[in-house]
Amino acid sequence: MKFYVTTVGYIRKPDVSSIFIEIAPQYWDATLKLDKFSHIIILWWITGHDNPTSRANLQDYPPQESAELSGVFASRSPARPTPIGLSVVAIKKIVKESHRIYIDQIDAHDNTPIIDIKPYMPFSDKVDNSKVPSWFRDNVPRYTKMAE
Amino acid sequence: MKFYVTTVGYIRKPDVSSIFIEIAPQYWDATLKLDKFSHIIILWWITGHDNPTSRANLQDYPPQESAELSGVFASRSPARPTPIGLSVVAIKKIVKESHRIYIDQIDAHDNTPIIDIKPYMPFSDKVDNSKVPSWFRDNVPRYTKMAE
Repeated sequence: MKFYVTTVGYIRKPDVSSIFIEIAPQYWDATLKLDKFSHIIILWWITGHDNPTSRANLQDYPPQESAELSGVFASRSPARPTPIGLSVVAIKKIVKESHRIYIDQIDAHDNTPIIDIKPYMPFSDKVDNSKVPSWFRDNVPRYTKMAE
Repeated sequence: MKFYVTTVGYIRKPDVSSIFIEIAPQYWDATLKLDKFSHIIILWWITGHDNPTSRANLQDYPPQESAELSGVFASRSPARPTPIGLSVVAIKKIVKESHRIYIDQIDAHDNTPIIDIKPYMPFSDKVDNSKVPSWFRDNVPRYTKMAE
């Protein structure tokens, strides 16, 4: 049985200072009350890796220095069986007229299809004191206070 | 253009004290180094809502008391255009022989298809001081220290 995703909008990056997601008009009603949240989780389709070779990839090296060979379930490799990207981003501004949600940044190409948006909920999505391998430990936190 | 997801395993809940994900044998290699992480993000297919009615749903009421009508992008409603569930869970044990990853809990039914697994990375996935609407504020944090 095949499961199909629905494209609900696109990531637009006209320039570095203006990054937004453009919701398809027929899905705009699904954004009601999104203004009550500061952050969202965007699920996007990694179009450039939706091919048999990338989808058969099970292991590679994360780009971090000294990273060891890792399974794609232990990395954010874009070449993976289901090419879905996941990004936690901050909402900067919501513009109803143009169906745009301006965000602070996203590690996805211009015109990438968005397949779902979820509100960031700290009680289920936030983990304090999570453990990661040594090669990820030097990464700079994005929305996290530095450890005291 | 249609994008389809790959089922890489299933959620199994034989009883409340034993919850695990069973990775399909051909995808087990993708778990290499997952033992270096404490938490994972599981993307699963909400099979029971993969129908035209649920996928056309754009707004409903979150189950929390006093919740206001919300767009599905501002809630975790299972009835949404792309029926993907997202759960952050703790890894309890990885058993190579049976291709099982035991987890602490998950809000999904027995035998739910898993479409992707990502390691939880605090530098990109953790948000301190996120804002949510009032009806979600009383939710008990799962993996978060109580606010001081």
